[in-house]
Amino acid sequence: MSNTIAKGRLYGVGLGPGDPELITLKSAKAIQSSPVIAWFAKRNKSGHARTIAKGLLPPHAIELPLIYPVTTEIPHTDEVYNHKLAAFYDEASSQLAAHLEGGRDVALLCEGDPLFYGSFMHPYVRLKDRYPVTICPGITGMSGCWTATGNPMTWGDDALMVVPGTLPREELLKRMSFAEALVIMKLGRNFMKVRDVIREIGRERDAYYVERGTMADERVMPLSNKTDTDAPYFSMIIIPGQGRRPQ
Amino acid sequence: MSNTIAKGRLYGVGLGPGDPELITLKSAKAIQSSPVIAWFAKRNKSGHARTIAKGLLPPHAIELPLIYPVTTEIPHTDEVYNHKLAAFYDEASSQLAAHLEGGRDVALLCEGDPLFYGSFMHPYVRLKDRYPVTICPGITGMSGCWTATGNPMTWGDDALMVVPGTLPREELLKRMSFAEALVIMKLGRNFMKVRDVIREIGRERDAYYVERGTMADERVMPLSNKTDTDAPYFSMIIIPGQGRRPQ
Repeated sequence: MSNTIAKGRLYGVGLGPGDPELITLKSAKAIQSSPVIAWFAKRNKSGHARTIAKGLLPPHAIELPLIYPVTTEIPHTDEVYNHKLAAFYDEASSQLAAHLEGGRDVALLCEGDPLFYGSFMHPYVRLKDRYPVTICPGITGMSGCWTATGNPMTWGDDALMVVPGTLPREELLKRMSFAEALVIMKLGRNFMKVRDVIREIGRERDAYYVERGTMADERVMPLSNKTDTDAPYFSMIIIPGQGRRPQ
Repeated sequence: MSNTIAKGRLYGVGLGPGDPELITLKSAKAIQSSPVIAWFAKRNKSGHARTIAKGLLPPHAIELPLIYPVTTEIPHTDEVYNHKLAAFYDEASSQLAAHLEGGRDVALLCEGDPLFYGSFMHPYVRLKDRYPVTICPGITGMSGCWTATGNPMTWGDDALMVVPGTLPREELLKRMSFAEALVIMKLGRNFMKVRDVIREIGRERDAYYVERGTMADERVMPLSNKTDTDAPYFSMIIIPGQGRRPQ
């Protein structure tokens, strides 16, 4: 008899934008069948991903929270931040690998879609050549947010540009000038800069501000109605396309 | 006793990219609880949306196929085409409205996400002020296609541009020059034009060609390995971002 244990499988489990009903059948099965459930979370927080998936967690699952050592809102150009974060992703990958080596499947919970600005991608590139991986796509946060506005997002020949608000002003301006539909993510401290660019390209009238799209405490308003300057990092601005259509 | 019947609710049911497992719990419930199931289809085809949802259809549902009078691949600048299509959407909306007036909920099945280049949007804008509507977002086709490539799509500060291949060459060139991650949809007869633009911006090496992403007969290959010029209308090209990341 061989001592070899079959390696476990890593599941990148997309959970969608926040409403647990927006989890797919595939993701639900991956959660329910995995003996180890992992997720990323900020220090002293229970983790938004775990909250979304809570109702599906198997009763005797081993829970593996992966706690960020630093905020994720610092610019990627900061060297010290970069090294800390890389070391963290190495360590998180080792923790996941220990379970996979032991033959235990691991469901790594991911808000939104695992391959779209997801933390999942960091352990994924470190582990994908050593372990079997299944990626369960999820509804993106932006899809949840445009649904929250109730507006068709792209018609016919419309182009869609998705930009992180973290980009410098001139980069935003250049990128946002050539698309009918726009999504601006990662607002936080970038909110006023983003708002200025939207005014400069003449699109404020079409824009919506969305916080926690599809969640119970969702907030949606025309951007022009937003009078304060506070915007959480995960809030978004949605500018629907106005493309040609048969009428 | 009043003769008033409560109006039915229109559900825009996102089905995701093709794999029935990628239907969300919310969409599954909307399908299972609706007495009328509608979908768009080409003439003489059973309809891809119905195929994806087949396993969830209630046994006694009234089925309402909405059959396009013309192909959807003609440019939107064609006036005759436009009038035909507008008349078709008016008629389809009337058929949906007849059920809603009768108090019957209608689940209108939508491939991908209902508000992202979806046919759903045409009856939606015609009916949304007269009937209650619930939109169930779905995983977009592009998300299914980038998952099929196995590549992280956007990192950190990457921007994503989504363009329909139907745009003129110069428009494509302008729009595709300012994003790290690119999705080019609606290939069909536009394939060679799109490929030329990708070469011109120097991104062919990073590009993947994907047909029927997440479906049983999915085809994925590096674009540089594709030697023929045939591409179905719903195939896509995916160019993942290469953004900075901690390492």
